[in-house]
Amino acid sequence: MTTSTATGNTSAEAALPINEDEIFAEHEGGKLFTGVTRPLESKRDLSIAYTPGVAQVSRAIAGNPEMARKYTWASRLVAVVSDGTAVLGLGNIGPSASLPVMEGKSALFKTFGGLDSIPIVLNTTDVDEIIDTLVRISPSFGAINLEDIAAPRCFELERRLIETLDMPVMHDDQHGTAVVTLAALENAAKVVGKDLEGLRVVIAGAGAAGIAVAEILLTAGVRDLVLLDSKGTLHSGREDLSGMKAECAARTNPRRVVGGNAEALLGADVFIGLSSSTVQEDHIATMAEGSIVFALSNPDPEVAPEVASRHAAVVATGRSDFPNQINNVLAFPGIFRGALDSGARRITPEMKLAAARAIADLAADSLTADYIVPSPLDPRVAPAVTAAVAAAAVGSTDWHATAATT
Amino acid sequence: MTTSTATGNTSAEAALPINEDEIFAEHEGGKLFTGVTRPLESKRDLSIAYTPGVAQVSRAIAGNPEMARKYTWASRLVAVVSDGTAVLGLGNIGPSASLPVMEGKSALFKTFGGLDSIPIVLNTTDVDEIIDTLVRISPSFGAINLEDIAAPRCFELERRLIETLDMPVMHDDQHGTAVVTLAALENAAKVVGKDLEGLRVVIAGAGAAGIAVAEILLTAGVRDLVLLDSKGTLHSGREDLSGMKAECAARTNPRRVVGGNAEALLGADVFIGLSSSTVQEDHIATMAEGSIVFALSNPDPEVAPEVASRHAAVVATGRSDFPNQINNVLAFPGIFRGALDSGARRITPEMKLAAARAIADLAADSLTADYIVPSPLDPRVAPAVTAAVAAAAVGSTDWHATAATT
Repeated sequence: MTTSTATGNTSAEAALPINEDEIFAEHEGGKLFTGVTRPLESKRDLSIAYTPGVAQVSRAIAGNPEMARKYTWASRLVAVVSDGTAVLGLGNIGPSASLPVMEGKSALFKTFGGLDSIPIVLNTTDVDEIIDTLVRISPSFGAINLEDIAAPRCFELERRLIETLDMPVMHDDQHGTAVVTLAALENAAKVVGKDLEGLRVVIAGAGAAGIAVAEILLTAGVRDLVLLDSKGTLHSGREDLSGMKAECAARTNPRRVVGGNAEALLGADVFIGLSSSTVQEDHIATMAEGSIVFALSNPDPEVAPEVASRHAAVVATGRSDFPNQINNVLAFPGIFRGALDSGARRITPEMKLAAARAIADLAADSLTADYIVPSPLDPRVAPAVTAAVAAAAVGSTDWHATAATT
Repeated sequence: MTTSTATGNTSAEAALPINEDEIFAEHEGGKLFTGVTRPLESKRDLSIAYTPGVAQVSRAIAGNPEMARKYTWASRLVAVVSDGTAVLGLGNIGPSASLPVMEGKSALFKTFGGLDSIPIVLNTTDVDEIIDTLVRISPSFGAINLEDIAAPRCFELERRLIETLDMPVMHDDQHGTAVVTLAALENAAKVVGKDLEGLRVVIAGAGAAGIAVAEILLTAGVRDLVLLDSKGTLHSGREDLSGMKAECAARTNPRRVVGGNAEALLGADVFIGLSSSTVQEDHIATMAEGSIVFALSNPDPEVAPEVASRHAAVVATGRSDFPNQINNVLAFPGIFRGALDSGARRITPEMKLAAARAIADLAADSLTADYIVPSPLDPRVAPAVTAAVAAAAVGSTDWHATAATT
């Protein structure tokens, strides 16, 4: 199997029963529009929504900036921000080419979270410039979903934006993926009758998603975790690591496994693929009894589900055409909606854990090896995640102090 | 009469039959929303609008950037941009407080021009920073309407953005006002049986609007034009002028009138107020036979229409509760729609003149002293302006060379 490239279709895409003409036809004119919440049909309507009436609203906000929360759309508007450097499996294709993906993301925010959302694509990849730009336009919206920004810049960018801006900021490729993966793993562990704390977990891929998944699993109680990058396992003896990878190496791999998939997967309980690479069947075959395989690369999983199923008790992918689709859309609409509903200014680890638990709980009553997470189209998901995240926000130390008064 | 301030209502606003509760109720939650052009109801819908289908559209745009015009919303999306420094009559109230006005503007773009539009409000007032910011986010939209940005920064900002960006950019407070004022003046001159070329025109106010109106009137053939700022008439002998005011002083006031309203209005044919100040009745009384008074300051005209009517043959204001409302909404939706429809990358003087003529023509058949421009709600206006502007764009030297191929 190959990763998709900018020059042609992959076999997995070609196999879908959707032809190219249909895809392009459905994207014509874009996937978003803006509308007005009240019609402007009379001079009276104009006098209220525009001059002179609007002056009273502007004057009120000038006197009390908190009123902008109630009388503009900005406080509930999510900016989907990308520099186009790590778009799907396509890589660095630039801002204009990333726009269809960002429009799609905004469409998902609206459809599943009921949140207004606009794509902001950037023709700079400089972290300082991106931060300056977003700070300057930040009165225009209420939250930022960072999307498809390449590692390692994405880590610094997210951290500094969270420090600088007084609004929820989340890089979905990291944390949306992490939340849904944790939800799925909690339920998969139940299916195979194992405790999260005792699992040996291998994560292939030490990019944005791999590192964020490692972090949330550690927070959730997993103790034996091994990450691999293209050079093998991360461990504290490697001298070629810096930044987040070095931090990860220090906090994971307690048995100090050295090597590649062969060494890491021997006796492992869980394989999580976030690498756009492949894993051999004979390595999967060496995993422990009752093993769990999440082959999440899209569109081409690290191992075909039918192959993995010969050895693993639970198999999941990121694709809609196999059981157990681990898809970020289960998480991000409710996470942002919950954060905005509660007036939170940050998305805390507690809020992410609460989101994962809410997703897992919705499938918990009817768990099977082929049903460890709800469907992305399950209408219960976003409201449940919203409620859980909002409750966790109110209990969190980072909760916005002024939220209680609005 | 007083200009409105940030601390209280003016008499003119209080007199409107719309109460404050109603205004605030109609602004709750903001005036805009985003929607999806196709529903996302099935796994198939998700596979087309998001992964894996969207990858084909992104890949196509990466290979041929012109395709973004057809397959994203950006090419027809207008950013309404403000730094909140000159909002209505309220002055420098900042970006958040300006947002209700920008939402209103976006609502007008949608209602009258059928164009999607998003407000971008900036918490910087530095011209270099604003330009850097807009350039960096420019792949997100197709045109920029600058709004409520104080003079003289607005002149440099607009000029440099036009030079830098490959898309239509227009400061509506300047050019929208200029287009509608020219349209009204062409018809008012017909009502009083005078030629545009022979008119003596006085413009009170040498800010963004006053200077833009002066420019378009000169372009349209007016020869005798006197501008006044708070210190009196602009003339080439004044040593306190710089920038656009100095340029204006050099190109106007051929009789070198020195003084204030008294000296400028004596024998004048036209008074155009864009000053947020007042003009005395006894000065209006000294104007020529068949005089024209446009008292356009909002919400308080420079002279009450019932007072001006004692002396002038044609009176217009910016208000909806008097005849002859000279309102930018007659111009900007069609100007931007025409520019985007034609693929123009600039809004040229020819396009502005064409817009003015289209507006004037719609009222030409039934001209009276109380009907010199169509109503802002006249549904014929935006389509007529769109068609005229698009035709002028195609004929213009600045017309985007690639437009013919898309």
